[in-house]
Amino acid sequence: MKTLRLARFERVVPLAACLTLAACGGGNNGAGNGGAGAHQGADVLALMRARDLSEQDVTAALKTYTPTGRFDEYYTFASGGHGGNVIVIGVPSMRILKYIGVFTQEPWQGYGYGDESGDVLNSVMRGGNQLTWGDMHHPALSETGGDYDGEFLFVNDKCNPRIAVISLSDFVTTQIIGSDLISSEHGSTFVTPDTDYVIETSQYPTPLGGVYAPVEQFNDRYRGAMIFWKFDRKKGRIVEGESFAIELPPYMQDLADCGKKVSDGWVFCNSINTERAYGGILEGNPPLESGVSQNDMDYLHCINWRAAEAVAKAGKTETIARMRTIRLQTALDEGLLAFVPEPKSPHGLDITPDGTRIVIGGKLDSHTTVFDIGKIQSQMSEKKYVGKDPYGVPILDFKTSIVGQCEIGLGPLHTAFDDKGFAYTSVFIETVVAKWSLKDLKCVDKIDTHFNIGHLVAAEGDTVSPDGKYLIAMNKWSLDRFAPVGPLLPQNFQLIDISGDKMQLLYDMPLPLGEPHNAQMIKASKIKPVEIYKPIGMNPFTHAVDETAVTNGKKERIERKDDGVHVYMTAVRSHFTPDIIRVKEGDMVHLHVTNIEQARDATHGFAISGQNIQLSLEPGKHCNVNFVAKKPGVYPFYCTEFCSALHLEMAGYLLVEPK
Amino acid sequence: MKTLRLARFERVVPLAACLTLAACGGGNNGAGNGGAGAHQGADVLALMRARDLSEQDVTAALKTYTPTGRFDEYYTFASGGHGGNVIVIGVPSMRILKYIGVFTQEPWQGYGYGDESGDVLNSVMRGGNQLTWGDMHHPALSETGGDYDGEFLFVNDKCNPRIAVISLSDFVTTQIIGSDLISSEHGSTFVTPDTDYVIETSQYPTPLGGVYAPVEQFNDRYRGAMIFWKFDRKKGRIVEGESFAIELPPYMQDLADCGKKVSDGWVFCNSINTERAYGGILEGNPPLESGVSQNDMDYLHCINWRAAEAVAKAGKTETIARMRTIRLQTALDEGLLAFVPEPKSPHGLDITPDGTRIVIGGKLDSHTTVFDIGKIQSQMSEKKYVGKDPYGVPILDFKTSIVGQCEIGLGPLHTAFDDKGFAYTSVFIETVVAKWSLKDLKCVDKIDTHFNIGHLVAAEGDTVSPDGKYLIAMNKWSLDRFAPVGPLLPQNFQLIDISGDKMQLLYDMPLPLGEPHNAQMIKASKIKPVEIYKPIGMNPFTHAVDETAVTNGKKERIERKDDGVHVYMTAVRSHFTPDIIRVKEGDMVHLHVTNIEQARDATHGFAISGQNIQLSLEPGKHCNVNFVAKKPGVYPFYCTEFCSALHLEMAGYLLVEPK
Repeated sequence: MKTLRLARFERVVPLAACLTLAACGGGNNGAGNGGAGAHQGADVLALMRARDLSEQDVTAALKTYTPTGRFDEYYTFASGGHGGNVIVIGVPSMRILKYIGVFTQEPWQGYGYGDESGDVLNSVMRGGNQLTWGDMHHPALSETGGDYDGEFLFVNDKCNPRIAVISLSDFVTTQIIGSDLISSEHGSTFVTPDTDYVIETSQYPTPLGGVYAPVEQFNDRYRGAMIFWKFDRKKGRIVEGESFAIELPPYMQDLADCGKKVSDGWVFCNSINTERAYGGILEGNPPLESGVSQNDMDYLHCINWRAAEAVAKAGKTETIARMRTIRLQTALDEGLLAFVPEPKSPHGLDITPDGTRIVIGGKLDSHTTVFDIGKIQSQMSEKKYVGKDPYGVPILDFKTSIVGQCEIGLGPLHTAFDDKGFAYTSVFIETVVAKWSLKDLKCVDKIDTHFNIGHLVAAEGDTVSPDGKYLIAMNKWSLDRFAPVGPLLPQNFQLIDISGDKMQLLYDMPLPLGEPHNAQMIKASKIKPVEIYKPIGMNPFTHAVDETAVTNGKKERIERKDDGVHVYMTAVRSHFTPDIIRVKEGDMVHLHVTNIEQARDATHGFAISGQNIQLSLEPGKHCNVNFVAKKPGVYPFYCTEFCSALHLEMAGYLLVEPK
Repeated sequence: MKTLRLARFERVVPLAACLTLAACGGGNNGAGNGGAGAHQGADVLALMRARDLSEQDVTAALKTYTPTGRFDEYYTFASGGHGGNVIVIGVPSMRILKYIGVFTQEPWQGYGYGDESGDVLNSVMRGGNQLTWGDMHHPALSETGGDYDGEFLFVNDKCNPRIAVISLSDFVTTQIIGSDLISSEHGSTFVTPDTDYVIETSQYPTPLGGVYAPVEQFNDRYRGAMIFWKFDRKKGRIVEGESFAIELPPYMQDLADCGKKVSDGWVFCNSINTERAYGGILEGNPPLESGVSQNDMDYLHCINWRAAEAVAKAGKTETIARMRTIRLQTALDEGLLAFVPEPKSPHGLDITPDGTRIVIGGKLDSHTTVFDIGKIQSQMSEKKYVGKDPYGVPILDFKTSIVGQCEIGLGPLHTAFDDKGFAYTSVFIETVVAKWSLKDLKCVDKIDTHFNIGHLVAAEGDTVSPDGKYLIAMNKWSLDRFAPVGPLLPQNFQLIDISGDKMQLLYDMPLPLGEPHNAQMIKASKIKPVEIYKPIGMNPFTHAVDETAVTNGKKERIERKDDGVHVYMTAVRSHFTPDIIRVKEGDMVHLHVTNIEQARDATHGFAISGQNIQLSLEPGKHCNVNFVAKKPGVYPFYCTEFCSALHLEMAGYLLVEPK
């Protein structure tokens, strides 16, 4: 198939081509078959007719269609919600490039099916249970100077407070960490501008440290907390011992954002349920949803984390569930924390690219409210308070702290920014994206979303230098958007062109697995993953050549040792060596498997019938697996990848002889 | 946003619009921003220039772009390979509509995270182990009269021989069944033309029944088998007791296909490794891949399943691992089985829509070979054999059994059919789709795929009435097709327009999770899933209103019984009732949760911190969960779905008091 490129196209046949393209005089060569006809030349009008496309559809198609072999301009990393995985999407094509297993095991990646990835997955237990899923809400890309640097991605688990670190060098989850200090979270993950800390904030208050207290002691014994997880960029790991937390009152802390540029060193977090309701419908109390929504204002939490870090370093902490915790009284004594009232049922909190303003969306409000960080800081340093909350936290004056409000529609949630001084807010109840000017807080454009919009994300839209161009509306309740797939519907990501004065809808993209909450969109040029693991024998979880790898002159072999049978194995197209493994019933079997290929995409899988083991062996990768051969029998093992024409022949036998 | 529909467009401004569309005289309004400009009017040439699109790209874009709210014309159901799930794709947009959890648990769907879906997932154990993944190869849609009827989908697990039944009324896996008769499989699933049986064929020979025998006894004690799983359409379940198997020689049985129309009642299956190699590299044997590939011909297995069914009904079986098995000698005595030599390293086996021909692709061949089923049947009935294999299976003459061969290129694999008498074969090594005429076995067109192609699927292309129109090339080794995502690459589905004389590439689609092997493409109009579960309280796994559901006047309540604490709970926007659950450490807790909503998409989730429980409660659905409250503490539970603006407030507490 030859492709007529534009340069030649224009030079040779400018006018004729236009006419063919637009079908002014062109014939209709087979458009009557309902969508798949007309394949000679780009007969635009005939195709529009055949597929009932509007002029706008044509524009949208040509702005998003990405021909074979062409790469997308942006990556979007979306949380998978209670799917527990990260979704990597190409923009503008809106094709899903990868699901990354994080809190949920995933066998295609071999994640949690035998090798050391299982140690990552099982590193945190809760309630006496192994956790095999998570509820991921807010991904955060690592930043340098407040800009995405494309090295790491952090994600959270709302249900069982945990943070995962994903290396963008191989798109693999390399660490999961969590603290029993809190029992749920939501305002997470957010990174400080140089990724010194990854921030995790509790949501539903519980007694700190995972202990029991009756719910009637809610006001006295239940608490919130914000955890500052220290990230060591060189190691690519969070260091628990250098992390710390600040105790907070038992409100429901919600979304947060870190200061940047002039506000670097600060973090802001909103809250709901300053009413301290805890439900109890069968016990005569109102449902939580109404108990929570009594107050017109809740409290924006303003925290000086740089000062808090110094307080923690000075040892003014109490260790609870292994976490160095700055008690609330200490935080107050040290002036780390103040509140500003914020309307109404606040949810989204987003700091402007220049670091001077905070935009709050109140889900029962019809305005976004813009706070002035400088004014907040000066009031705090001058101790200009108008009151205290029941826990002694000083409260600043609302009107003195804000720049103003933008009338935006009912139910504003989240805000992203472009490169021209505009903000884009998702408005849930009206179900639109509203574009408004940060200069005069006037709304200049609205676009319907279908429906209803939750979060939104713009290209590099929460960094110090947003790109504009593209925005994705992340919609819930995607009724009637896609061919039906039963009672559980996909969500809908709507891609919107924000490069012009008016926003334009480009694409509806179903989410086939998971329920994303938030996303980050980064320039594709910033992501530079490795293509293979090298040198051969690399263990992705230790970042070193494994000492059990068959490399550097070592040979494939089987050795019986005190701790069981060790199998040192290689995989290469199209065989495993050894391909026959003889053990006795009850033996502990240690497999050490090295993919000795170095060709890109020469990935092998390794699965054994009956043993629930499935490895993904990318080129150069080494995996270690231990299992007990419980039951006598003959268990075929084989390569689960279509690694060559002879992939079916890449197989062997595990022979388990009866005792 | 107003959309200028075609009718008006043509009536009012035919010529001017053409010119605008083609930009012959139109201005360039902002196309210089790298892809997201030019949004007023469909300025085709400006967009082509801005995004470097060829004329062919424009055609492809307009043949695939599916505007907001427009449904796709076809569903493609692809196996997820070692991802263990089914992938549902809309055609021609190539958007993924859903991943269906099958052999691997999936928390977004609540599949395997507390409710009865766990019983489905855990119904088959192997090697003394629970299985939490599978290797899915060949999906089969249920058929009536050899045509897809859109009611059920069957899929297989190659690694741990199992079959899953997916109900297309709600896109949920409702049954998983397997037999210890065999220890691996591949030729599966294939259905008989009215879905009386679902066929599963072993791949790597092992001793039947899961017992041990040394591999040196391969020829004598290792065997293959083909299982005929009886499907009860009314119950929507496979009935083990009415299923049967046929013992086969220890070759590697490979792909199969059921006869249809004139060949209804027959099944054909190819094989490799008639050499009976079993590897043993470290023990001085050649690798399996070369041991397997010594013979120029292997054996096409021709089986009269209708006669076999009668033999099984007559009780001429031996029960092995609970499976009624027709021993090989019985099969020979009863004339159920014969072989035909087939060249070379055969892999794909596909029966033509009229049921008269079998197309075989040999992966080390350069031809497809077309067998005549009538000739095979008449030779078998006349017992015209040219020899026997070592197990006494009669062998037919190759040349007498074939229609001819088509010279097609190196490495033909699989074949699909259109509505005009053409066959389309994937050619792995040449990495093309070859279109050839069934009439004269001449190749008429080839299209490059990038690369390499494995299976392919055409619209209803393996039924008695293929549609033509679309074909998907399912490519492996998708190097350089998409923005990089680390060493583990997505596969690539290439959509090809087959409506004209020449095939045209339309779309490259990355597979973000899983490694599909095969797929089936069905008219969207045939799939009619339910939108909600009704009446309220429906348990999708029993297909009845659950007796523990809070419905029909029953009330929400908590009751302590002998077997633990029973919680009868409802979910409705935006609260659970009860929202406080008080238990004691060590209590068994039985949750009975009913989503009492009947609005479409009013799905709630239900997760409890620390308990590893996550339910997906679609409207009307009821779930039952049991767990032990192991550890004292306060565990928030909440709705994991963004079910309304107040979804964060849809929460409660599980209070586990110390003993």
